[in-house]
Amino acid sequence: MTIATNKRITHTLLSLLLLAFASGSAAAQELLPSWNDAPAKKAILEFVAAVTDEKGKDYVEPANRIATFDNDGTLWLEYPMYTQALFAFDRVKKLAPQHPEWKTQQPFKGVLEGDMKAVGASGMKGLMAIVMATHSGMTAAEFDQEVSDWLATTKQPRFNRLYTELVYQPQLELLAYLRANGFKTFIVSGGGMAFMRPISDKTYGIPPEQVVGSSVVAEFQVKDGKPALVRMPKIDFINDKAGKPVGIYQHIGRRPILAFGNSDSDMQMIEYTMAGEGRRLGLFVHHTDADREYAYDRKSHVGTLDKALDQADANGWVIVDMKKDWQKVFPGD
Amino acid sequence: MTIATNKRITHTLLSLLLLAFASGSAAAQELLPSWNDAPAKKAILEFVAAVTDEKGKDYVEPANRIATFDNDGTLWLEYPMYTQALFAFDRVKKLAPQHPEWKTQQPFKGVLEGDMKAVGASGMKGLMAIVMATHSGMTAAEFDQEVSDWLATTKQPRFNRLYTELVYQPQLELLAYLRANGFKTFIVSGGGMAFMRPISDKTYGIPPEQVVGSSVVAEFQVKDGKPALVRMPKIDFINDKAGKPVGIYQHIGRRPILAFGNSDSDMQMIEYTMAGEGRRLGLFVHHTDADREYAYDRKSHVGTLDKALDQADANGWVIVDMKKDWQKVFPGD
Repeated sequence: MTIATNKRITHTLLSLLLLAFASGSAAAQELLPSWNDAPAKKAILEFVAAVTDEKGKDYVEPANRIATFDNDGTLWLEYPMYTQALFAFDRVKKLAPQHPEWKTQQPFKGVLEGDMKAVGASGMKGLMAIVMATHSGMTAAEFDQEVSDWLATTKQPRFNRLYTELVYQPQLELLAYLRANGFKTFIVSGGGMAFMRPISDKTYGIPPEQVVGSSVVAEFQVKDGKPALVRMPKIDFINDKAGKPVGIYQHIGRRPILAFGNSDSDMQMIEYTMAGEGRRLGLFVHHTDADREYAYDRKSHVGTLDKALDQADANGWVIVDMKKDWQKVFPGD
Repeated sequence: MTIATNKRITHTLLSLLLLAFASGSAAAQELLPSWNDAPAKKAILEFVAAVTDEKGKDYVEPANRIATFDNDGTLWLEYPMYTQALFAFDRVKKLAPQHPEWKTQQPFKGVLEGDMKAVGASGMKGLMAIVMATHSGMTAAEFDQEVSDWLATTKQPRFNRLYTELVYQPQLELLAYLRANGFKTFIVSGGGMAFMRPISDKTYGIPPEQVVGSSVVAEFQVKDGKPALVRMPKIDFINDKAGKPVGIYQHIGRRPILAFGNSDSDMQMIEYTMAGEGRRLGLFVHHTDADREYAYDRKSHVGTLDKALDQADANGWVIVDMKKDWQKVFPGD
């Protein structure tokens, strides 16, 4: 069989695939089952229908169907503390025997004594010191293993589940639905790329190369005769706030047509997304559900959602109210 | 139809697709038609057969079938001067009226007077000055347009063809063949990401987000009330030599199983690729064909291939001899 024959077969089969999805889309009542029939779900379905309708004025070629999602608080739980910070604190405890000086040195002393107030008082400088001490000084493969092991074994205390199980079921459905409609889905997070990549494919169906995030400088070194990438104690890029559109440019090179966040740190990503030509969709998760998850917004120390709430209406951003819009929160519910 | 039903249909159809490709692979004599039946082609076919054989010891899951290709001299012509440098020189000429000082200032004076010796004498510092003056100070969208317009209109003098037509036909076939076998193909180039991305999909079937390259710093700014990404006169990252494995880590997050280059600048990428577990393939194009393209290697000012030639045998790298291995060079031939 020649490549040309293969191509024809492929084309035919792909058309069948698209048909299968198209007939799926028609049965709208069965799509996104964990989303309540409320304005947010309607906005999503209408948007996807519009950009995939080849005869409509809002049609977007599959190649340009880029959707970007924040991670913490948008795809998985972030409250009362970012998962990656908890990982860093646990690593401080694990590494403490090699660092006797941490017993008297903030913010490490605070972490070791569980004194979060002292950790907080050390500010951004203290936080960076923790990140550098726990996220660098090893090869990429070693760090990958550390992250994988921690995420495979550490349970969130309130829900007594792994953090990778505390992902939002409605968002898993949305990611799958978008992909079934020809979208390419990306994570664009303030968190570390290397922290999300080991679990992104299994957890979200998003391969590592579609995870954009903050990073430390890496260096190519030949260690013990073997080439390796070594993570250096130096920030490479902070993929947050105005850094998100920059991360999108450097990694994706195309402007998303849909962006989903949950805090003021996502505003620039969503502004950038909405400012493109043609139809666009920008959404924020609003954490309103203290029973099933957490309720926090304007005054929260993580995932602050304040200005975005004020500006949503004027900008046409969709606020997804967890309590009202989501029938289910976590997959096990 | 539910998502679950869709998934089953999808799965069935995807299996059919895979079958179609599998039967294609069996007809090896019709694969890679522009590659002569010589050791390089054999090495490629054997490698792909091995990593896609589900029952074999070298099987690699589709998700990990990452293939990275250098661009200049590996996918398209780079001799006697990198295409992006020619673009930069043309932009210096275009921008000269706004920069009367360039008439007396090197390396700009050299570019304007066609005095390449003077440009060369300005060294790396001079080259950077040219890159900064021509690749920054505009929005991402504006730069994209400049590149697209230039590549759509500028012809290579010897072949009298657009640069995007001076891509290597055997490599186009190889890229398609790898993708048909479940590989994800990436460009990993020393050239600018933003210079390749406007043409990568159309030219190579590689979407912009799968192009890794050098970059300038970008800044998110709100200009005239519209959010935009502005390219700043500062190098962000040089994706060359030891930078290539780093670029792969930051952008792809997985080690390639196949890497293809053409110069000593690709050695680290190929070393890194080959040092992974399991079966790997590393290849270099050797430009040996002065009649159909160019012949250059050890002493060349572009695409220097010297140490890699010496070390190829010991490292199991495949040297692809353009004259002997390629039946065709460019698509039109």
